[in-house]
Amino acid sequence: MKPFAIDHLGIAVRSIEKALDFYERQLGMSVSARETVAGEAVHVAMLPAGESRLELLEPAAADSTVARFLEKRGEGLHHIALRVPDLGAAAARLKEEGARVLNEPRRGAGGHLYVFVHPASTGGVLLELIQDEQETSH
Amino acid sequence: MKPFAIDHLGIAVRSIEKALDFYERQLGMSVSARETVAGEAVHVAMLPAGESRLELLEPAAADSTVARFLEKRGEGLHHIALRVPDLGAAAARLKEEGARVLNEPRRGAGGHLYVFVHPASTGGVLLELIQDEQETSH
Repeated sequence: MKPFAIDHLGIAVRSIEKALDFYERQLGMSVSARETVAGEAVHVAMLPAGESRLELLEPAAADSTVARFLEKRGEGLHHIALRVPDLGAAAARLKEEGARVLNEPRRGAGGHLYVFVHPASTGGVLLELIQDEQETSH
Repeated sequence: MKPFAIDHLGIAVRSIEKALDFYERQLGMSVSARETVAGEAVHVAMLPAGESRLELLEPAAADSTVARFLEKRGEGLHHIALRVPDLGAAAARLKEEGARVLNEPRRGAGGHLYVFVHPASTGGVLLELIQDEQETSH
């Protein structure tokens, strides 16, 4: 795996069903998994895209992060997630350089280690950095 | 290559230099190519990301498409480009289904065949579909 692979693109939508009518039925992509992440009140549908995937995000509650995003910005890209070889070192360096790293490295629902970097530091995109587990197993 | 690989993400920025201070110097990605596409009045810097790449887009003229995007939306994701195995068939099917395909398949500066699909059809993202040349050579 080459470095900085795009792990996934999170796309906020009002209705996963409606979005799948485009991505799945019309365009021919396939859903590999669907889940509801209770802690973040979000329904997720994953569509593999090469080595990466699109993650459609639909609010599961009116006061969730994704619901607020939709209210403010409408449907569209919510975040870009890149895999990095050494997340701890990357996060420390970014903070040292003054980038707006939004959390200490922590583990998500799927067990992966991640941080978010604020759009103000990245050219306007909310950027998730994810520990590339294939790298650590070497 | 698995189908629907993400060919690139186009990110509109006011200054490629400033964005590279983050992506290249702080995060450790590398620029593989820089060019100016005169026809679209845009400066481009490409950063390989696994099988995909980030394309930073900076206006080369005040009345360019990217300049207008920045004025209206600010910095951030401009479009997502996916590779598809049969672009002609995909574009025809999408139009038949009522998706808002913005152009007939045509060739870009790099010789690749593409169409754009309007955000209204795709969950809020401007979607570029690109003929996967690796598929056609089989």
